[in-house]
Amino acid sequence: MSKEVKPESVSLNPLGTAAAPESELLCIYGTGDLGRSLGLRLLQSGYRVVYGSRRPHSCGPLPQGAQVMSHAAASQSAGLVFICIHREHYEFLEALAPQLKGKVLVDVSNNLKKNLYPEANAEYLQRLVPGAHVVKGFNTLSAWALQNGPTDANRQVYLCGNSAEAKQAVAEAATKLGFSVLDRGSLSAARELEDFPLQLFPEWRLPLRVAVGLTAFFFFYVLLRDVVYTYVYEGKDISFRIMVSLANKVFPIVSLIMLALCYLPGVIAAVLQLYRGTKYKRFPNWLDRWMLCRKQLGLLALGFAFLHVLYTLIIPIRYYVRFRIGASTISQIKENKTNEFDNTSAWRSDSYYSVGILGFAVYLLLGITSLPSVSNALSWREFSFVQSKLGYLTVFLCTLHTYLYGWNRFLKSYAYKWYTPPGYMLSLVLPSVVLVLKLLLMLPCVDRTLTRIRQGWERTDPEDDSKKSLLT
Amino acid sequence: MSKEVKPESVSLNPLGTAAAPESELLCIYGTGDLGRSLGLRLLQSGYRVVYGSRRPHSCGPLPQGAQVMSHAAASQSAGLVFICIHREHYEFLEALAPQLKGKVLVDVSNNLKKNLYPEANAEYLQRLVPGAHVVKGFNTLSAWALQNGPTDANRQVYLCGNSAEAKQAVAEAATKLGFSVLDRGSLSAARELEDFPLQLFPEWRLPLRVAVGLTAFFFFYVLLRDVVYTYVYEGKDISFRIMVSLANKVFPIVSLIMLALCYLPGVIAAVLQLYRGTKYKRFPNWLDRWMLCRKQLGLLALGFAFLHVLYTLIIPIRYYVRFRIGASTISQIKENKTNEFDNTSAWRSDSYYSVGILGFAVYLLLGITSLPSVSNALSWREFSFVQSKLGYLTVFLCTLHTYLYGWNRFLKSYAYKWYTPPGYMLSLVLPSVVLVLKLLLMLPCVDRTLTRIRQGWERTDPEDDSKKSLLT
Amino acid sequence: MSKEVKPESVSLNPLGTAAAPESELLCIYGTGDLGRSLGLRLLQSGYRVVYGSRRPHSCGPLPQGAQVMSHAAASQSAGLVFICIHREHYEFLEALAPQLKGKVLVDVSNNLKKNLYPEANAEYLQRLVPGAHVVKGFNTLSAWALQNGPTDANRQVYLCGNSAEAKQAVAEAATKLGFSVLDRGSLSAARELEDFPLQLFPEWRLPLRVAVGLTAFFFFYVLLRDVVYTYVYEGKDISFRIMVSLANKVFPIVSLIMLALCYLPGVIAAVLQLYRGTKYKRFPNWLDRWMLCRKQLGLLALGFAFLHVLYTLIIPIRYYVRFRIGASTISQIKENKTNEFDNTSAWRSDSYYSVGILGFAVYLLLGITSLPSVSNALSWREFSFVQSKLGYLTVFLCTLHTYLYGWNRFLKSYAYKWYTPPGYMLSLVLPSVVLVLKLLLMLPCVDRTLTRIRQGWERTDPEDDSKKSLLT
Repeated sequence: MSKEVKPESVSLNPLGTAAAPESELLCIYGTGDLGRSLGLRLLQSGYRVVYGSRRPHSCGPLPQGAQVMSHAAASQSAGLVFICIHREHYEFLEALAPQLKGKVLVDVSNNLKKNLYPEANAEYLQRLVPGAHVVKGFNTLSAWALQNGPTDANRQVYLCGNSAEAKQAVAEAATKLGFSVLDRGSLSAARELEDFPLQLFPEWRLPLRVAVGLTAFFFFYVLLRDVVYTYVYEGKDISFRIMVSLANKVFPIVSLIMLALCYLPGVIAAVLQLYRGTKYKRFPNWLDRWMLCRKQLGLLALGFAFLHVLYTLIIPIRYYVRFRIGASTISQIKENKTNEFDNTSAWRSDSYYSVGILGFAVYLLLGITSLPSVSNALSWREFSFVQSKLGYLTVFLCTLHTYLYGWNRFLKSYAYKWYTPPGYMLSLVLPSVVLVLKLLLMLPCVDRTLTRIRQGWERTDPEDDSKKSLLT
Repeated sequence: MSKEVKPESVSLNPLGTAAAPESELLCIYGTGDLGRSLGLRLLQSGYRVVYGSRRPHSCGPLPQGAQVMSHAAASQSAGLVFICIHREHYEFLEALAPQLKGKVLVDVSNNLKKNLYPEANAEYLQRLVPGAHVVKGFNTLSAWALQNGPTDANRQVYLCGNSAEAKQAVAEAATKLGFSVLDRGSLSAARELEDFPLQLFPEWRLPLRVAVGLTAFFFFYVLLRDVVYTYVYEGKDISFRIMVSLANKVFPIVSLIMLALCYLPGVIAAVLQLYRGTKYKRFPNWLDRWMLCRKQLGLLALGFAFLHVLYTLIIPIRYYVRFRIGASTISQIKENKTNEFDNTSAWRSDSYYSVGILGFAVYLLLGITSLPSVSNALSWREFSFVQSKLGYLTVFLCTLHTYLYGWNRFLKSYAYKWYTPPGYMLSLVLPSVVLVLKLLLMLPCVDRTLTRIRQGWERTDPEDDSKKSLLT
Repeated sequence: MSKEVKPESVSLNPLGTAAAPESELLCIYGTGDLGRSLGLRLLQSGYRVVYGSRRPHSCGPLPQGAQVMSHAAASQSAGLVFICIHREHYEFLEALAPQLKGKVLVDVSNNLKKNLYPEANAEYLQRLVPGAHVVKGFNTLSAWALQNGPTDANRQVYLCGNSAEAKQAVAEAATKLGFSVLDRGSLSAARELEDFPLQLFPEWRLPLRVAVGLTAFFFFYVLLRDVVYTYVYEGKDISFRIMVSLANKVFPIVSLIMLALCYLPGVIAAVLQLYRGTKYKRFPNWLDRWMLCRKQLGLLALGFAFLHVLYTLIIPIRYYVRFRIGASTISQIKENKTNEFDNTSAWRSDSYYSVGILGFAVYLLLGITSLPSVSNALSWREFSFVQSKLGYLTVFLCTLHTYLYGWNRFLKSYAYKWYTPPGYMLSLVLPSVVLVLKLLLMLPCVDRTLTRIRQGWERTDPEDDSKKSLLT
């Protein structure tokens, strides 16, 4: 950086005294964990650091090389002051307002909860010290991230403030620490920045609610059809089946539906684009929101599929299953009848398991490629290949798995207890719709139009001719 | 950066009007997704942005703070113009050539397919506007990556162009956006850069072909030996076994062979270095290519091993298996004979499963450490420890697992139907070779020589004495 | 960067000849792998590169665009010399001392083992060329990382040296290559930096020792109680059970204990903070060390749990199990007695499996979120939610799983062979303690005090009133 203004001085005489830079001095108020970590990092990045403390002589261990002074003295020599103090203790800064006039104050504070105070910490600070230039920033980093340097997702530092020059000065320090800076505008964005570290999986909420809702519905549906029905008509208590058998019906059903929900919005969007004849109209809000949580829907569905696999694999070691198999062998002998080996049953059972395993394997592959470090390593084309081609393959295999499970029972009336279809039949509706729509979209004529639309082409109405062209 | 030329101005008076920097103004042609994302990011990083548009008054929503003008007016005030337009619409730029003279034009475009046009987009642009300095770059980033900031693998921006100064100007903007820049030389590299985002797993192709080839071969081999043989000699149709039993023979065979293929080149390379007595001769091309796809070979092998595990675990819930076990119990009773418990069979079956599980677990560990984010967190020595020591442990355990599976059947003639050995025996050849060679390489005398060679020592022929020393 | 000193020159006339920067020239001694990779990267980042070689005319392929000269000539024109030579060959540099006077020498070397030499390579270099300014650095990067650019964990370059100006010059080059720089102080830190790449999982050692110790202890404990006891009292040799049955007792026991060990220090720390009434006193060393290896303890426990799952799932395909089940069916028939279906057994077996599966699934989730790329993508609050809430849920589920496994056998005297409790009972002690303590800490009154302490509040003794306030 800036090498073009001094190529010789560095290349030929980097140690010449004339060009010798004196390290910049920064000030930190507060000697807690965050203050210490920030100071250590600043020192390591080549800055000089002075701490401001109320009791400079008894403030515990500080990074080697840093000075400690009173608050007023510390800020004297530095233009930039990091305020690493809890908001509750800001008040004393009001008295320092004259000394802090014209300084850049970096508010790195966070709150313990959202909406704890009527105004953002940084705005409160600005009110206390109106003559200073308050910049909100660094608050999304943990003391740990600060001390150990930026890592993948923690490389971004968000700044906001009313003074462009103040933000520029803070941005330079952040860049030097190895972070990359994003300017979020004026100080009124401070509240938003302060809410960042308090987020608790916002993008997972909707998918989680869907998952819980579906699970609850199908649990009661299956409970009614299996346990209650048996109790009513046969007088037998098979409630122990809740723990494994019922769970192993609910999990795959929810998994398949959520997998379909993950690919449905893409199909709907394509249909919408075809209908509208352009890609430049915004999708309705519900569709946008739906599309944004596809990854979460898919991962939850994978989780349910994983549970389904485990619940299936423990089947043969269950007491109930062992008892039933033993009892059936014994009764066969007692009644002296021999079951014939049924080739069709063998085909059905083996196909059904085999397709299920392949579906789960492809599904797992999708899950692995959605790990941040893996998806980052893919080119755009590779990522879309995996998520689209392998995605629909997963939907297809899992749907086929369920159809094979049903086999010829779709037509047997005994399957429809109380005139309700079994749960797995219900779960087949959405994925079948997705697959049929996708097949239609893959028809050459439809596909061609869609591709052109996605490249920016617009179906022109005669009166609206001027619209196509340079928009992209 | 550049802090040494103005330490006071920042430290003591960062807001002084004298040093107040006016943000640089950049121009963007095109108001599509990419143009909007790029503009937003530039604004957030502290630039001023002006868009050039054919219809400045009706070009849809643009990032707050950006201006829109006609193309000619927009480029007037900026020295750097990002061309976020599809190549098909470049033509109009020819008319703007006088206004764009001396400007830096950044061509960020991509094509939909390889070899769509005879010349690279950037070269075409240079031809249209010969007076401008065209730089190809940013095209490997998606609009999404641009808007959300650089992430691990997306941090690199590749640039090429004929003017070093123009590249320097673009590189500075890229650095400021948080990317790291790699210069790929003159504009003739543009085609290569434009092909980057169109890559589809180039390094996976060879391993995938090997996997498909091996799978096909062993599928037919096993089909012949099992299904066809049984049909011919016993007249029984056991084709249903294709779905699970045969798959579960093919998958472990392919997995073991590919695992061996993953460690074979390393052994060959060591033997070659020993033979040549130096590490400074290049390996033959086929070996280089083979070594470069070891990771992919290994991961595919892990995938097949995973399928093998699942196919094995569902064995007891298959209809066929349940039927056979029931039938065998019944026949035992009817014939009133009791099988004796065979301690050797118990040892064999349990050892074979246990070793297989341990092998799979170590294998999975290898797979996990090959995740980019995990391997990045390892020191070089840790990574080589895992990939080498644990790698050979995996080969050893999986090979042992297969030998234990075979047990004493290697010597039984009935195993050799149609004079062919069972598939698993074939799969043992390569891993056994790898293990024996590795054992030989671990002999102290061999190991010592190899280590010295790898540290740069060369076996000197008398007439070639001058070669050793400072080469590394 | 540094844009504020030349906004016009870049914006309006970026190609003006006046400002045209001549690329800086850097020198590299050594043309081995590392030298070549470094040179390629420097060239791609816009530097000019000259190699110093003993035989400039026969030193093999070098990156295009680089020059090669004799050592003396190469360093003439550059101020910064990268020494990419093995330490054993440093001696010749002594003769070059006059030419290298005042230059910055970057020692990038590593050794093959720790403590191979009495002094660090960089200190040795400084002794050979006392007039140069030696900076240790770049040695934690592999040639591979250099050539392919910085990745997540490999972005950090550590520097140390006695001259601040020299470090500054090297830091600028490193930043330009895309790395972020950490200054580790004077040249006396060189030894530490040189030991970095030789580390072999230092943070895994303690947890691994714990795991091995626990495994060995419980293996012999279970061996004694099962195999030896049966041999002594029943004269039966069931040693084949070592391979699967015994392993499948030891693994879950070790897993549960290590899981508890992973959460115990957190609980102890909380109790300590409550007792002391402050968070500002350091924890005892053993507790600090323990807390630092919680992640490793947890991941090892997950590994053991994974083995337990696999060992459990293969149960039904074991020869021994199949034989026993067949034999039991046959004996039932021969003795003509029918077992009654036991509803309680069904409930017990199903609950026990179901809870175990759920516990394993949550556990796996914990493991996935501890992948670097995933945990980096979480906000601090999300990470602590996962690791704390889901963590204790895992402990709870796994403990419940074990209690359900025991069921009513805790009270049966036959379970206590040789007056020793079964292994799984021993494994329940620690997790039960953790859960009870955690429950106590969650009592509203206790929780409130603890939260206040962690926010910086201190229980004040009357004579020590001044302590609270601005400490954080």
